[in-house]
Parts: sequence; C-alpha cells; structure tokens
Amino acid sequence: MSFSHRHLLGLENLSRDELTFLLDTAASFKEISERDIKKVPTLRGKTVVSLFYEASTRTRTSFEIAAKRMSADFISLSSSTSSATKGETLLDTARNLAAMRPDAIILRHSASGAPHFLAARIDCPIVNAGDGSHEHPTQALLDLLTIRERKGRLEGLTVAIVGDILHSRVARSNIFALRTLGATVRLIGPPTLLPPELKAWGETTSDLHEGVRDADVIMMLRLQLERQGKNFFPTVDEYSRYFCLTQRAVAGASPEVIILHPGPMNRGVEIASDVADGPDSVIMGQVTNGIAVRMAVLFLLVNRAKVHSSSEAEAPVAETRPPAARLRRRAG
Amino acid sequence: MSFSHRHLLGLENLSRDELTFLLDTAASFKEISERDIKKVPTLRGKTVVSLFYEASTRTRTSFEIAAKRMSADFISLSSSTSSATKGETLLDTARNLAAMRPDAIILRHSASGAPHFLAARIDCPIVNAGDGSHEHPTQALLDLLTIRERKGRLEGLTVAIVGDILHSRVARSNIFALRTLGATVRLIGPPTLLPPELKAWGETTSDLHEGVRDADVIMMLRLQLERQGKNFFPTVDEYSRYFCLTQRAVAGASPEVIILHPGPMNRGVEIASDVADGPDSVIMGQVTNGIAVRMAVLFLLVNRAKVHSSSEAEAPVAETRPPAARLRRRAG
Amino acid sequence: MSFSHRHLLGLENLSRDELTFLLDTAASFKEISERDIKKVPTLRGKTVVSLFYEASTRTRTSFEIAAKRMSADFISLSSSTSSATKGETLLDTARNLAAMRPDAIILRHSASGAPHFLAARIDCPIVNAGDGSHEHPTQALLDLLTIRERKGRLEGLTVAIVGDILHSRVARSNIFALRTLGATVRLIGPPTLLPPELKAWGETTSDLHEGVRDADVIMMLRLQLERQGKNFFPTVDEYSRYFCLTQRAVAGASPEVIILHPGPMNRGVEIASDVADGPDSVIMGQVTNGIAVRMAVLFLLVNRAKVHSSSEAEAPVAETRPPAARLRRRAG
Repeated sequence: MSFSHRHLLGLENLSRDELTFLLDTAASFKEISERDIKKVPTLRGKTVVSLFYEASTRTRTSFEIAAKRMSADFISLSSSTSSATKGETLLDTARNLAAMRPDAIILRHSASGAPHFLAARIDCPIVNAGDGSHEHPTQALLDLLTIRERKGRLEGLTVAIVGDILHSRVARSNIFALRTLGATVRLIGPPTLLPPELKAWGETTSDLHEGVRDADVIMMLRLQLERQGKNFFPTVDEYSRYFCLTQRAVAGASPEVIILHPGPMNRGVEIASDVADGPDSVIMGQVTNGIAVRMAVLFLLVNRAKVHSSSEAEAPVAETRPPAARLRRRAG
Repeated sequence: MSFSHRHLLGLENLSRDELTFLLDTAASFKEISERDIKKVPTLRGKTVVSLFYEASTRTRTSFEIAAKRMSADFISLSSSTSSATKGETLLDTARNLAAMRPDAIILRHSASGAPHFLAARIDCPIVNAGDGSHEHPTQALLDLLTIRERKGRLEGLTVAIVGDILHSRVARSNIFALRTLGATVRLIGPPTLLPPELKAWGETTSDLHEGVRDADVIMMLRLQLERQGKNFFPTVDEYSRYFCLTQRAVAGASPEVIILHPGPMNRGVEIASDVADGPDSVIMGQVTNGIAVRMAVLFLLVNRAKVHSSSEAEAPVAETRPPAARLRRRAG
Repeated sequence: MSFSHRHLLGLENLSRDELTFLLDTAASFKEISERDIKKVPTLRGKTVVSLFYEASTRTRTSFEIAAKRMSADFISLSSSTSSATKGETLLDTARNLAAMRPDAIILRHSASGAPHFLAARIDCPIVNAGDGSHEHPTQALLDLLTIRERKGRLEGLTVAIVGDILHSRVARSNIFALRTLGATVRLIGPPTLLPPELKAWGETTSDLHEGVRDADVIMMLRLQLERQGKNFFPTVDEYSRYFCLTQRAVAGASPEVIILHPGPMNRGVEIASDVADGPDSVIMGQVTNGIAVRMAVLFLLVNRAKVHSSSEAEAPVAETRPPAARLRRRAG
C-alpha cells in the first residue's frame, strides 16, 4: 500500500485503503512530537510554502510545526502580504511561487475548488488547508485519527455532527471519510442549515438530544460568528438555546462518548465550558494529532513528488524512511 | 547554583543568587553572537513559540534571533493573526499551542498577570515578554547585564530612573532586581506619575537635575506617546521641557555615568539626540545584550523542563552544556 | 576577479566586470534549486534580516528562500510590525537591528537613497531591495541573467523597455546595467512619463510598435495602479490602448524576441494574457533566476564581510566555497 496521489485536495474520492494508510502514517509520526529532540531530517532541504487567503492561526501553525519537525524550510505567505492586494490573480501568484521550486504549497482560500484549479495548472504538490465550504481534509484526518485512537476503530461507530453542516468544510470532509470507513453519520442543526439533499449523507434532525442519543462520537462545529448576517437562524442566543452541547445533552449519548471540536471554540455558544473541559472531551488530543497528520501528509506528498520528478538521489535512504517501524510493518 | 523555576514571569521574587546566575549565564552566551558562525546546537529540535498580543519588533526579533542562534525552531504568532480575532480566550489559545508540544511560549499581553494565569494552567514554560504595566523581566535583565559589564558590579550603585514610572513594566522589573542586588534606586517623573506608594521603592523627585545628581546610571523610560490622552501631564512639549535628558542634566551626574534607554526612542522628547548618541550612552550595548539574555533564559527554561518532563536522553550531553567554561566554573 | 563592495545599493556604479561576476556567480547557484535536496551549508550560522517598509510578497519570499537554501537564518520585519509605527527613525531601527549582529540587512523603502543613508552609518552589509523610484538591483540582475541565458550574451542586444520609465526603479537599474554591458536601450511610454532627460539613456518613443520593432528583448514594466491619481495619463483604459503588449505588437519585434515582466502582472492592462503565457515569455524563468541572483548576492556580501570583520575561521573552507566549479574557473 502507498499513497499515489500528487495532491491532497479532499477526502471525497479517497478509498478506504488510502484513508487507512494516511491514518497509519500519521500515527507513526506521533511519537516524534513526544521526544526530547522533536526533529527528524526527513524533509531536510525541502521548501514548504503556505499561501493563506483566509486568516488562521491554528492550521497554519500546525503545518509550520509539522514541516519544521521534519527539517523542511517553511515560508509563510498570507493574503494581506501577498500580491493579491496588487491585483494579481491566484494562478499568477501560485505560478510565481512554483517557479521558486517549492516542494509543496499549502493553500487556504475562500473559494471552493481553488486548490483543484491550481493543482491542474502548476507543477507542485498542493495541500488543501480549507477551500470555501468545500473540504478541509487535514482537519478531518486529525479528527479521524483521534476517534480511532480512542475507539480502536471507525467502522460501525455512530458519529453525530452538530452545527452549520451546510457551510462547514470540516463537516464535509469528515462525512466523506467517515462513510467510506464504515461509520454512520447523523447531522444535527437548525432546519435552515439542513436542506433535504443532506439526507443522502446520513440521518438529519434539528433535535440535539435526539441526534446525540447513544452516539459514540459527538463532533461539534464552530459557529462562525464572523460570517453571521446570513440569517440562517434568528440570533446567537436562540441558536445556543437549541444547539449548545451541555452535560444534559451529553448524558443521552453512549457512556463512552467522546467529544470533538475543531476550535476555536465559542464557549457557551455551541459548547458548554464544562463539556469542553470535561472528561469526555478529546479536543486537546485533536490539536496534538494535527501535527502528526500534517507531518504524514507533507511526508507522503513531498517524497512521492521526488520519486516522480527527479532521478537524482542525494538523500541517503535512511533519511526519507518513515520514522517508525510500525509503519513499515503495516505498509509491508 | 542553578535556576530552578519553570517559568520566567518576573524578577520580583527572584533571589540575589538567582538573578546573579541568570546574568552569569547570559554573559556566557555573549560570545556566540560575536563568532563568525553564530550558531550552537543547544536547542536543536526544540520549538519556541512567541504569542504577542501587543505589537513589538525589538523584543520579538531579539527572542527570535536568540532562539535561532541556539538552533531552535521559532514560530511567531501575533494577535492580528491569532484566533483572538475569532473570539477565542487567551487560555484556549495557549492550551491549543501547548497541545502542539512547544518547549517554551513567550507571551506579551496588555493584561498584567496574563503570563501568571497561563503558567498555572498549561504544561509549558512561559516567558513573560511584557504584561501590562506589571513586569518585563528580560528587558530588565539586559539592562542589568549592561550595567554590570560597564560598572563591574550592581551593588552600591545609584540608579536614576526617569519617566512614567507608574505605568512602566520595564521600570518595575528593574526596580525589583536592582534593589535585590543592592543598588539604590531614585525615581524621577511628573508628580502625577509618582504616587506616594512609589516611595517604598526609592527616593522620588520631580526635579530631573536633582534626581540624576551623582547618579552612576541614568535609565530613561520611553514616553508612550501612543498611550497618551490619559492626561497625566499637560502636553508632550511640557513633559519634554522638564524631563528630557539633555547634556546639561547629564553634567550633574557621576563623571562615569552611563545612560540606558529601552527603545524605541522619542528623540527630543525624553532624550536629547546628542545624549542618545553620546559617549555615555550604552543603548546599543543593551540591544546586543538582549540577545544574550534571551538565549540564557530560553536555555535555562527549556533544558530544565526537559530534565523534569522526560526521561529520554537523545541529545548528547555536549549539546546541552552552557557554551562557555566560565559558566561551568561559576556554577560548579 | 571578485566582488569587493560591502553593500549592493544599485547597479549604476558597477563595472562590466563586476556585473559579469555577479551574473556568473548567480548562474553557478542555479542548480542548487534543481536538486532534490535544495540546501547547502554555505551561510549556516548567519543571520539575514529583511526590513521592508513597502509591501512585497515576491521579493521578500525570493530573498527568504535564497537565504534558507544556503542555511542562513532569516528574520522578516515589515513596517506594519516595526517600531516605525512607534515613531522610531529608520536609522534607529537599523542601528538596533545591527546591534543584534545580523550578517546582512535587506531593505525596501519608499524613499530613494534610504539604503545608501544606512550603509554610511551602520556596520552591516545592506542589500537594496527597492528604494523609491531609484534602484532595484537584484530585480535587474535577474532580468539580465534571464536575458543572457536565452541570448547567450547581453552585448549588442536591443532591449525595449515599456511603461512608466520615469518612476520605475526596475527600469533604472536595468538601464544602468544594460548600457554598461553593451546593450542598446529603447524607452517607450506616454510622453508625460518620458521627459527629455531620459534621452541620455536611449532612444525614446511613445509609439509602442515603433519602439519594439526588431527588438531582441521586450521588458514590460508593471503599471502601478495603486499609485495612480498622479495623472500622468488620462485613464487605465487609454494607457492600455496604446501601451498594452499584444501579439500584434510583438509581431514587429525580432523573431527570437523574449518578453520579460517583473510581476505582479496586470493582465490586459500592460500585457495581453496570450503574450504573458505565450512562447516568447520568459517571465517564469525570471522568478526562478531571482532565487539564484539573491543567493549569489547574499553569498558574496556575507562572506566578504566575514573576511574583513573577523579573523576567526570556524567554518571549514569547503562550506564557504561557491557551489559550482564553473564559478571558480571563471573567477580564477
């Protein structure tokens, strides 16, 4: 088994084997961040560029730490500093970057499909770090890794996803992958954010208590307060009254339920503080797993790109091997 | 002797021995920045994160250079890019960072006590890079190092501090440490910025010429023009007329007086240009010492954290030793 | 032959030999960015600081990648984060940086002459990354390298430069160097942007078709839409009607003409999309060469500085040698 894609644009079209291989690879990278010396030479001499057209601390920082822990150089560009403000097109900006010979470009963009557009036009692996309301594959992979760690499996689990499903790229990536991996998905939110077509993906309900009943996993979405004004629900207070995850709601779920949130949290809006900080919460574990997932993705894309685009083999083989023996056994 | 604190939150509660050990360690790091190859592997594989909720070039850059000269990875976050703008609490932001397994977090925040609040709640060494009007310990340490270099000692010196003592975290950290180390402190500023309780720390006066008379050290504070409007004095012109350090005022100090300023300077406001650039000024030396002080602080906190949180010993001992033999002798 | 200047402030006063040596050195660095492991230890332990008072992605990123590919540490400062906003003078900011012992400062500033002003006052090599409407030497060097690669020479070529010659630092640096290297320059733009004194540098015309006739090279300038309102021409539409480089205009040039643009491009304003993306365009090659040129400039300035300011020789000789044998032969 190996990962044969040149880019990571989304999880929708990945097979069960491919998703499992990504998660296995990520799991094998976890221990690096627990070492005293948290650095391996895996991507030494590689250049990873992040190009973010939407603000983000968490995701950009996670990719930056992941790249640096593998000894890559990391160059960070944001729309406020980029030539976008000088009227340059996304394609020209990306072509220019590509001409500087990076080994991967990590793109966040408000337009759904932006990374696919670039992937078809420039000669560099692209990692989608969130495109519009389409996909956010590394976030979903870290969610999946966290669930698999705690539950030992994904197949057969019931996962309740709560919030603005309609506009959430995190939800979409998770839904695609969870279904591929054999989990059952329930979608919970205000009726205006649960149009009928979502029923193709799983049961839908606007009753939080009903939706989380006996669930193995509750995945909260962030209420994007800054995108409000779209009037999909009357007020934040009213949203909160019906959809804030409280201890009372959690009580109806499986006794071993785990609770995820992609952050940043609006405490008291979509999640109660005692739930966020309680024993069922695995939210900090998600963040830790984000580093491992992004290390795995960069490792697989950059090294695959190398095999295909270069016959030169300067790096000793030892440097480019996955870091843990476990991976080799599983992949063998 | 060693430094047994997990964090550097302030100088108020540090003992004479601890302060001396910090300064000795810093002094031992100075020569690295004078080498042709200004890099040691001391913190290779370590991740240092700066989280700045107030703008700063100097301090952030100084920490960044310090970290990189010890081969650490440095990740820079500022409030404008951070999740603060998405409504996340400081604690959640810091917990998220901590889940990414950094080896130190450098925090600047407008709220006094913010680093102490985090230090009690997250499992990562915290360096206070300025909290409200409370403390700015690395700035004071670099001031102390600069004075000690030029004067050979701190004990018995008379240090005149001039400006907005009331609101200055630089002044507070210096006052605490100078008193612990046996120096005499004089505080000089407009009466509105010298409330009676400051008398507990040293002589106070609103007469600049009287205040600097026979002083061994004059430490100017920056007039924070951007924080004006608080109406502690009528106008900048009037402030300047009474408290701008001119050659005439300096003439009354000790013939060997040295003059410090933390920068950025408002030339002609709190300090005359000919004084700032004159032979008594050690302002550029302060900046150079800032690198050494921050190297020492990061070195001591990160390596201490290692000893306590990890039994794994991947780094060869040679890599984590302080760089100069002088330190080992003194600490032995 | 060697490069004996301490700074790179402009190309106006460089000799033919010096320019040729810079281009030869840059050419020798090109292959590093085509390697699988794009990293050499040439500047390990060196600190390169960029200080940008004007926004730029391309140039800053290009310098950053160049520095990191030679293993230097790169510290990025911009005016929005710098102490400029606290009223500090450029000189004080630069002096402070210099006190942190960087090995080079890369300066972009809106004031013509700013890097020269600093070079005379601080003890650190300065690279001009664009000063007002004066010079932008590394951009011109990458243009020259691109032309030389495609044409095999610079001497005897006819180079048509089209746009706002009057305000373009890119044009000025190119004009100085092209003339020194024996090329013929034609300047094309609206009459308001072609004052009589420009005739000292080359033929001038406001007729695009006449100007590019039989040209070996067409160098388009960017129309700085953000600087408009200066009313040197009526409207962008009208500018475009007369000065947009279309296939029809290109048809009158030499059959082997190559087309350059410094980016970011205003497609449809100063250059038609089919020209920008057509077979005569070498625009992406310019970007790739930018890395090599900046590696060469940093290499030459930092290593020269070393020889002059330090007797310590910690770096093994092998590390500081230029990367390709070709250079040594040429320089020998």
